[in-house]
Amino acid sequence: MVRRDEIRDGEQAVSAPAADDARLVFIGRIGTPWTSRMDCPRQGSWEGPVCRIEVFEPWHDALRGIAEYPQLEVLYWLHQARRDLVLQSPRDDGQVRGTFALRSPVRPNPIATSVVKLVGLEGATLLVRGLDCLDGTPLIDLKPDRAIFKPLAPPTPGDLAVGSQP
Amino acid sequence: MVRRDEIRDGEQAVSAPAADDARLVFIGRIGTPWTSRMDCPRQGSWEGPVCRIEVFEPWHDALRGIAEYPQLEVLYWLHQARRDLVLQSPRDDGQVRGTFALRSPVRPNPIATSVVKLVGLEGATLLVRGLDCLDGTPLIDLKPDRAIFKPLAPPTPGDLAVGSQP
Repeated sequence: MVRRDEIRDGEQAVSAPAADDARLVFIGRIGTPWTSRMDCPRQGSWEGPVCRIEVFEPWHDALRGIAEYPQLEVLYWLHQARRDLVLQSPRDDGQVRGTFALRSPVRPNPIATSVVKLVGLEGATLLVRGLDCLDGTPLIDLKPDRAIFKPLAPPTPGDLAVGSQP
Repeated sequence: MVRRDEIRDGEQAVSAPAADDARLVFIGRIGTPWTSRMDCPRQGSWEGPVCRIEVFEPWHDALRGIAEYPQLEVLYWLHQARRDLVLQSPRDDGQVRGTFALRSPVRPNPIATSVVKLVGLEGATLLVRGLDCLDGTPLIDLKPDRAIFKPLAPPTPGDLAVGSQP
């Protein structure tokens, strides 16, 4: 499955409900060295190649201030992944685990998240290290990495809530 | 605006393209103590209240093995957020920055990500700390936190790639 679209021993597909609860707009396009799913890294690395994230209009102004954050979270759409497997066998050895216990591209909503290192900005194109996806992958969102972001707005009542046991 | 739907001084909305490049299926529902956007935390905390993530059928089997991961990444749909602002003023003080330089709920694709602490599992409902969203928020995805996940499948050529300068 994951790499190509076969179903391996032990893997389980379900008849999924129609995916029409919400709709996305692709806000850009990611350029990487990888043109086949067989070559894409399992996980991106900050030592890996520089990739290009091109942001489309009308979203250019939304990049203002982004260079203040050397680490960004990137959300992207894994357009070649199937969406109906609940059990997967990453090693193809008959052993399976649940899709939500894996970071496989195959999932009901094939959205990947990576934290990348920002190494350059050319107009509305970001140069980053740390991606793992196919050349041409659609971009969904960019955010400062939560590890280095502090909210600018004042705290709310919820920020002060401390939890009791369940 | 973030909290309500007004446009503040300096903020900029765009006429966004139709959002129909990809479609999502809601795979569950998140229960939290917060019923108004004015009360939701700016950021979730592992000291915060226990929240409940209910996973719907037919995705229950996809939870197999998830309890091995004490930290999970959660993706959810911010169903009350507007999507057309490119510049925002979090402090409502006339100073603005770009949407992609903020973790505001207001963004072209209003998807939030949090890393939560798993504190319990009751059937197909996860008990977690670290969320920040409204009661009833639709669930999009669950994954092991990248910080503690190691791919099970063997490396690919891409995993071995080391990048040169751009």
